[in-house]
Amino acid sequence: MTEPLPESRPIITLTTDFGIQDYYVAAMKGVLLRHCPEANIIDITHLIPRHDILAGSIALERAIDSFDAGTIHVAVIDPGVGSARRLLIVRLKGQLILCPDNGLITWPWRRHGPGDASELTWRPAECSPTFHGRDVLAPAAANLAAGYPISPMASPITDPVLLAIAPAKTPGHAVIIHIDHFGNATTNVGPELLAELRNPDVSINGQNVGAVRRSYSDVPVGVPVALIGSSGLLEIAIREGSAAQSFSLRVGDKVHIQ
Amino acid sequence: MTEPLPESRPIITLTTDFGIQDYYVAAMKGVLLRHCPEANIIDITHLIPRHDILAGSIALERAIDSFDAGTIHVAVIDPGVGSARRLLIVRLKGQLILCPDNGLITWPWRRHGPGDASELTWRPAECSPTFHGRDVLAPAAANLAAGYPISPMASPITDPVLLAIAPAKTPGHAVIIHIDHFGNATTNVGPELLAELRNPDVSINGQNVGAVRRSYSDVPVGVPVALIGSSGLLEIAIREGSAAQSFSLRVGDKVHIQ
Amino acid sequence: MTEPLPESRPIITLTTDFGIQDYYVAAMKGVLLRHCPEANIIDITHLIPRHDILAGSIALERAIDSFDAGTIHVAVIDPGVGSARRLLIVRLKGQLILCPDNGLITWPWRRHGPGDASELTWRPAECSPTFHGRDVLAPAAANLAAGYPISPMASPITDPVLLAIAPAKTPGHAVIIHIDHFGNATTNVGPELLAELRNPDVSINGQNVGAVRRSYSDVPVGVPVALIGSSGLLEIAIREGSAAQSFSLRVGDKVHIQ
Repeated sequence: MTEPLPESRPIITLTTDFGIQDYYVAAMKGVLLRHCPEANIIDITHLIPRHDILAGSIALERAIDSFDAGTIHVAVIDPGVGSARRLLIVRLKGQLILCPDNGLITWPWRRHGPGDASELTWRPAECSPTFHGRDVLAPAAANLAAGYPISPMASPITDPVLLAIAPAKTPGHAVIIHIDHFGNATTNVGPELLAELRNPDVSINGQNVGAVRRSYSDVPVGVPVALIGSSGLLEIAIREGSAAQSFSLRVGDKVHIQ
Repeated sequence: MTEPLPESRPIITLTTDFGIQDYYVAAMKGVLLRHCPEANIIDITHLIPRHDILAGSIALERAIDSFDAGTIHVAVIDPGVGSARRLLIVRLKGQLILCPDNGLITWPWRRHGPGDASELTWRPAECSPTFHGRDVLAPAAANLAAGYPISPMASPITDPVLLAIAPAKTPGHAVIIHIDHFGNATTNVGPELLAELRNPDVSINGQNVGAVRRSYSDVPVGVPVALIGSSGLLEIAIREGSAAQSFSLRVGDKVHIQ
Repeated sequence: MTEPLPESRPIITLTTDFGIQDYYVAAMKGVLLRHCPEANIIDITHLIPRHDILAGSIALERAIDSFDAGTIHVAVIDPGVGSARRLLIVRLKGQLILCPDNGLITWPWRRHGPGDASELTWRPAECSPTFHGRDVLAPAAANLAAGYPISPMASPITDPVLLAIAPAKTPGHAVIIHIDHFGNATTNVGPELLAELRNPDVSINGQNVGAVRRSYSDVPVGVPVALIGSSGLLEIAIREGSAAQSFSLRVGDKVHIQ
């Protein structure tokens, strides 16, 4: 008689625009634990700006990068809830993502894909028309975490909705895609593009940031710095300051690299 | 030889006005895990406005609705800590709630009760007079989660403190009870009351919101909508906007239904 | 044949200035769970003001006080990341703390120490120069939680960086060290110092707060009160009000006790 090896608890992450003052996040956790009591639920963030699908997509890509094969990610930024928009199950890097088909999958798909996409067609007998995160995505994710297969609840598709954003292939397409808590600005520029340029020099909003450095501490306190940040993309910062504030940076601003 | 069935880890939820910048929430978690290392602790919210017992009560009801029988809920909005106010253990829907007896139990009691109420009379040998959440409620909840019975630590009572708020039995009693992160306003009006009316029409602060719809997407973007929200109560929203901001809504505002 | 006793899951706490809108906290959790899938990760707070090492140190001391022997604490307030500043492993009260050697250890060391300090010399093969919390501290902490010994990854030191702050030994050294979410101000004054004084009387910023009471409810609503707070230190509050706001209190303000 053999015993199964002990398995780790399945990890389910949550990325939403629900905020943390209401019960919405806990409602999803209640459903997840009802269907998969062993789930280890990890919050990525619930402070995606309301209905900001691009910001949600950037965070979701980081979630996928931060966890290993087998992880299940649920992302709910869903201004179209109750409309005919589809729900997705996407397999990428051995991980599963469940989210509305409104562009949220874009950044994971562009950086780690293409993946295998399906439309989640399963619906519960009782389903509120205003909270599919709780009533559809959470039970589906929990059942997948508990070992239930995808195929009975979904149908393969080839055309998930993708936003126009993509990693820059030329310096002319470099833009800011995210501003973080510290006022550091992440761009869509990877090290491959920088490697093609000779001594790249970075400017933003008319401010020269200089060469690409290794670390914040390569410049004095208060001085701007460009470097490859922890997400593996070009980042513009001010050491112990806020680049976003000092240079009035916003998502979508063009970055000049020459 | 039989083996006991594997049991799920006991779930303990927390609802407080502690905020999330200080150590107070973690202090409660440390005590919960000391007495019940297998506890699965779920945050409902810690951003109840300071000392706002009504808001805490609304959140606590949602916690009870979101989880299953066997769950233990600890709620600490406790301006009277250190005074003679009682502490409660209430059984409702097969779940246990531990909280100060200051009205916090009201909304769970009104929507799911009446329950079985007891006064938590147990006190630890060492107990700070300023943090009963950590020093009394947390160890009591953890011991209950670990299987300890209620009776040695509590005495039945029949008169928990209840606030004046109740589900509306007539349209004249309809009020806003909660404003969420999205600016959606929840009322105390359930579907039963709406079912008694012929084609109910909703107004608030002199603004007509119209008929009760099924989903946010039943109106164009920017248009107000009344619907039964995910809490099972009448909700007033603006599709992809903020009803609270546009109509200057506040908790307690009268809702007109005719 | 004997079976090992079931063990509790190892507890790892996190104290950072990362905020909760970005992926940084989740990135650390992904690494912790990769190396120690059974870890029970508890957030102390991620809202330490950016780069505020003193505030982080105060929170970290509370984390250590709130948990039991065997707990591992990771604190990341790290303006010097990428520079030559050391990383620490400190054993205090049977618990381990991993953090940058920039003064973060001060308040735990002053209240519970001295401890056993080592420099964490281990570095992973791949290590970003901007996020040592994720790339060095998290895997080290997870491996310690999983039972790996300290000695191969660290070297004993005797000179951790300590800030100038210390528990007051005389009334003349009494200062505010923390302002909490409720506007209550914690001081560096313990009960031992108060016991040396006859009927101590507290003033702050020219406002008399009076004698040291037992509980907030010992004064009427709206009245200032001095008491030993839940952290075991003298605290200045206003019952159901904000002492910080009413008296314009700030960390570092002198407290007058006579």
